[in-house]
Amino acid sequence: MVESWSFLDTVESNFRPLVVIELAKGTKEETIEWFTKRIVDKKANGGAQLLIKPLITENGVENIYLVGASHLRLLLGAETVGLVKECSDNSMRAFTYSSRKTFKDFADDNHSFLTMAECQYIIKHELENLRAKNEKMIPGYPQAKLYPGKSIVRRLLTSGILVQIFPLHDREELKKLRHSWYGRVKVGYQPLDDIRCYFGETIALYFGFLEYFTFALIPMAVIGIPYYVFAWEDYDKYVMFATFNLLWSTVILEVWKRICAILTYRWGTLLMKRQFEEPRPGFHGVLGINPVTGREEPVYSSFKRQLRIYLVSLPFVCLCLYFSLYVMMIYFDLEQWALDYHKENESNFSSLMLYVPSIIYAVVIEIMNRIYRYAAEFLTSWENHRLESSYQNHLILKVLVFNFLNCFASLFYIAFVLFDMKLLRQSLATLLITSQILNQFAESLLPYWLQKRYNRRMKKRMCSQKTDRDLSMAEQVNMEKEMGTYLGTFDDYLELFLQFGYVSLFSCVYPLAAVFAVLNNITEIYSDALKMCRVYKRPFAEPTANIGVWQLAFETMSVISVVTNCILIGMSPQVDALFPDSKMDLVLTVALVEHLLLAIKFIMAFVIPDKPRDIQMKLAKLEFESLEALKQQVRAFQMQLHFLLIHH
Amino acid sequence: MVESWSFLDTVESNFRPLVVIELAKGTKEETIEWFTKRIVDKKANGGAQLLIKPLITENGVENIYLVGASHLRLLLGAETVGLVKECSDNSMRAFTYSSRKTFKDFADDNHSFLTMAECQYIIKHELENLRAKNEKMIPGYPQAKLYPGKSIVRRLLTSGILVQIFPLHDREELKKLRHSWYGRVKVGYQPLDDIRCYFGETIALYFGFLEYFTFALIPMAVIGIPYYVFAWEDYDKYVMFATFNLLWSTVILEVWKRICAILTYRWGTLLMKRQFEEPRPGFHGVLGINPVTGREEPVYSSFKRQLRIYLVSLPFVCLCLYFSLYVMMIYFDLEQWALDYHKENESNFSSLMLYVPSIIYAVVIEIMNRIYRYAAEFLTSWENHRLESSYQNHLILKVLVFNFLNCFASLFYIAFVLFDMKLLRQSLATLLITSQILNQFAESLLPYWLQKRYNRRMKKRMCSQKTDRDLSMAEQVNMEKEMGTYLGTFDDYLELFLQFGYVSLFSCVYPLAAVFAVLNNITEIYSDALKMCRVYKRPFAEPTANIGVWQLAFETMSVISVVTNCILIGMSPQVDALFPDSKMDLVLTVALVEHLLLAIKFIMAFVIPDKPRDIQMKLAKLEFESLEALKQQVRAFQMQLHFLLIHH
Repeated sequence: MVESWSFLDTVESNFRPLVVIELAKGTKEETIEWFTKRIVDKKANGGAQLLIKPLITENGVENIYLVGASHLRLLLGAETVGLVKECSDNSMRAFTYSSRKTFKDFADDNHSFLTMAECQYIIKHELENLRAKNEKMIPGYPQAKLYPGKSIVRRLLTSGILVQIFPLHDREELKKLRHSWYGRVKVGYQPLDDIRCYFGETIALYFGFLEYFTFALIPMAVIGIPYYVFAWEDYDKYVMFATFNLLWSTVILEVWKRICAILTYRWGTLLMKRQFEEPRPGFHGVLGINPVTGREEPVYSSFKRQLRIYLVSLPFVCLCLYFSLYVMMIYFDLEQWALDYHKENESNFSSLMLYVPSIIYAVVIEIMNRIYRYAAEFLTSWENHRLESSYQNHLILKVLVFNFLNCFASLFYIAFVLFDMKLLRQSLATLLITSQILNQFAESLLPYWLQKRYNRRMKKRMCSQKTDRDLSMAEQVNMEKEMGTYLGTFDDYLELFLQFGYVSLFSCVYPLAAVFAVLNNITEIYSDALKMCRVYKRPFAEPTANIGVWQLAFETMSVISVVTNCILIGMSPQVDALFPDSKMDLVLTVALVEHLLLAIKFIMAFVIPDKPRDIQMKLAKLEFESLEALKQQVRAFQMQLHFLLIHH
Repeated sequence: MVESWSFLDTVESNFRPLVVIELAKGTKEETIEWFTKRIVDKKANGGAQLLIKPLITENGVENIYLVGASHLRLLLGAETVGLVKECSDNSMRAFTYSSRKTFKDFADDNHSFLTMAECQYIIKHELENLRAKNEKMIPGYPQAKLYPGKSIVRRLLTSGILVQIFPLHDREELKKLRHSWYGRVKVGYQPLDDIRCYFGETIALYFGFLEYFTFALIPMAVIGIPYYVFAWEDYDKYVMFATFNLLWSTVILEVWKRICAILTYRWGTLLMKRQFEEPRPGFHGVLGINPVTGREEPVYSSFKRQLRIYLVSLPFVCLCLYFSLYVMMIYFDLEQWALDYHKENESNFSSLMLYVPSIIYAVVIEIMNRIYRYAAEFLTSWENHRLESSYQNHLILKVLVFNFLNCFASLFYIAFVLFDMKLLRQSLATLLITSQILNQFAESLLPYWLQKRYNRRMKKRMCSQKTDRDLSMAEQVNMEKEMGTYLGTFDDYLELFLQFGYVSLFSCVYPLAAVFAVLNNITEIYSDALKMCRVYKRPFAEPTANIGVWQLAFETMSVISVVTNCILIGMSPQVDALFPDSKMDLVLTVALVEHLLLAIKFIMAFVIPDKPRDIQMKLAKLEFESLEALKQQVRAFQMQLHFLLIHH
């Protein structure tokens, strides 16, 4: 096998490994041969026309392959995936090979025109679009069925022959990025463009949002500090804080859309055409004809899926919600018990005991959230959604509802059933701080520590004390393939979403929440950066134009927070005292204010344009140009036709 | 002049006049010659390549011209405007001349493949896109400036040389349409497809919405009748009615989106690509470079426009709103005076007098609405919006806010300040019925009567007693050019919007409103049909994919109605009696129910898909096909390239 690859080296003398393919140990020779042949085969023969090389370590061949591509191949691939790059005239345009000369920094020998992340994305796209021709199965594995048009890589993955595909780190670049990102202690912005070049748009957009959100919280935090310092307990001050908070949270979410448009325009993803969505890898069904594409592929009745959703998933989610409420009631019993204990034997120990139920509850909530997450993933996968986007939406909805209830139910209960503002403040603080500490620990520090320990063991086993830089390709691949896989930005956004809930839902009783959020987010940026650079395998870049469903989730949270804050303010004794004669007037005033605030929110969301004016103009210009080009085509065709009609 | 046209008759022996152009009396010969030459000139020379003929009446040439086009020209024009037609395989596709054979009912000699309305739309589009080349002004009129790319027709219109352009009626078709539409008394649907063929999509969609809305109101009306018959005054029944009403109004608005998608898919407009929007005719400014198109055209600073909007228009609108409230207060004084008068000298006359203030007020409201409408049009035009769509949005917003306040302020005042449910019911009935009668009269019957009188006089003057069918072309044109111009569906939708307000805002105190609305709408269909067919000039067809901003307006109204109905129910003595101990509990319960209803509304709007599944599938199929075609192109190009690279 190994020898037959030698001709590739002559074709492309500077083979640069970009992506690693790991096949299962003991994969049959004929399968490997067929698969690698398909990868290197000409496009015209239905191949991917990429370069592939086996990785040779001291233990010999280990079924690990390095994939690369010629520069030309990558440029053509960039056109296929619809990459948008900057032109010499500073406008953003979809890259095409024929118009390559008009792009900024393009030169036939400039191999850094495409970033490494882009190259890896192109290779991933080409590999995933390597489709079966008339193979009925994967050679050597009769149980792994194929049909014309089925993605070979996806079938290899689902049948376990292909263990994983992952892009290689670029140790040089990574070191530079690490240095400018979190290497030195500095006040300033993250190098978002560099992050985007290295990790792709989805991850860069998450860090952009995290940074923006942190900055946006600072005004709240600054206003919140004097409440703690001077122990302000006047409700007119709380009212001011809450009102500011509500309007501010609307503004920051609207402004984020604009900033997001600026970022993704610069990165080209705002203009990228949506690709036709293929079925997700896990989707299975009986072979049939897809009514949209007319191709033979597995189909699964939408009715059966609806049945699974409404008869199994929905009841299960309800059950979990009920269970979560049940746990909450136990927590309140514990809380009561701790209080009684403290009253009976007052001591340092007993006053410490007062915090124990809250801490236990916070830990239990985190555990329940994580267990539920697995259940939700299992159920959503069992619902057998055809598209990844539909799968993601159902998963996010399930997880969001449960997390929301799990985290905030006890606070709602304390606020609106027990009417105990002191307990509310205390619970809020405990929940917020505990969950932040747990998250930072579980998400970054623990994996980092494990990774570090593993790396040390690895290096010892290799009996060498080289630094990272001197690692051979084989060592690098072997180290990276054992690293954890980054599962996407879901958990990171979820954490921010819950944090936003803690900050905004009850902002008028605990103005200090914003301060903790800001402090957490600053360390979060560092720990997330550490996690991306040190703990996980490099993830494939994913182009994206916005933060998707999370925008909606944050906006919903900010609507709910209008309601909760208005009620809290209405319930406060100080506001109560303003209406000594009639509780009725109080409630009516609160309701009126609430409706006004909601109306203002909606009007603001409507009035603030989602895209800044200059981006709008640039988009209009591009649209105009493409319409003009189309018109020119039609006109040229019509003239030809007229000419023909006249001369015949 | 007249003689020089004779050659056109030989080119196209069956010249079919489609559109009439009326130039001002005394327009200079050179202007006419230049303009007509540009119209008939070849596309390649920058002309419109249409056919034109002067209309010869007994009084000689009157500067009226008939415009037509050859069948081939119309087909090419259909491609330019992006018409979507049905293919032989029942799918809808953008018409192109090269793929013409694949379309249903296409044959080279089938001149009815394009409907007359489509042909007229194409001619209008071609005329409006007849652009100045290097003329600096309109020949003969140095004050009418031109610049390269300026639409000639728009400049002729704004400088008053061109009086009007309108499409001709087809007396045959119109008679058939009238017969099937409102000729016979029948229970059944309107011939929407025929209306669309004759009047275009915008008008057909209005009638479709009117019909749908009427059907949708029937359940409310049916449930409302027993309230009147059995004089139900129990609030538990009203609560039931209001709850049904609220959910129902959400459902009907969501279902309308689906029906609208079905209609516009069938008509092809759902798939039509948006054309690049040119500046509206009335837009003026200093010549400059448009940053989007790069063309020289008038530009007007957006800052100046904002100043006009916020420093003039906004204060003016506020002033009008204040004035409207002032008139309302006078009405209440009058009402009080009538009541006092009735109490002092009780007689038939005085009890009749009780209704006088309401009727006067309803009339005054209608008058104020109409005057304000003119002011709003003037102001919005003065704001100098570049695009027609932006002009329309600002106009609609101004008119909607004022009309809403003008029509409903008194009802809100009675309901939530006076707490007088009896007066509310009475006012609601008076306002609703008076405005309906006034509208029907002012909109259709009066113009119809005027038109009829005028026609009779015209015919007498012509000294002939021919029937419509026998009219010569000259007589038809002369008659139609004097008819009023239909100004679009704005007023018709506005009327429905206000009616929806009367029905839904206070539905729980006056369930009979839906009955009146249904009755009004049935006659409205007939009177609007009469108006379209008999009173007005034929309007140009306008392709449209939905009812636009009106969908949003209706949805906003249904949100407001949730709030008003909940408050009304909460205020009722019967519901009051359910909470004998605590008014607080009552208010809190009402607020809770209101928030729940609003949440249900939003969830319903989110869950019900905007397009039916089969339309979604068809759209996905089209998108897939176009993506595939693009991919094929790219692939073919790449193969060529690879071939070249290998062989050189």
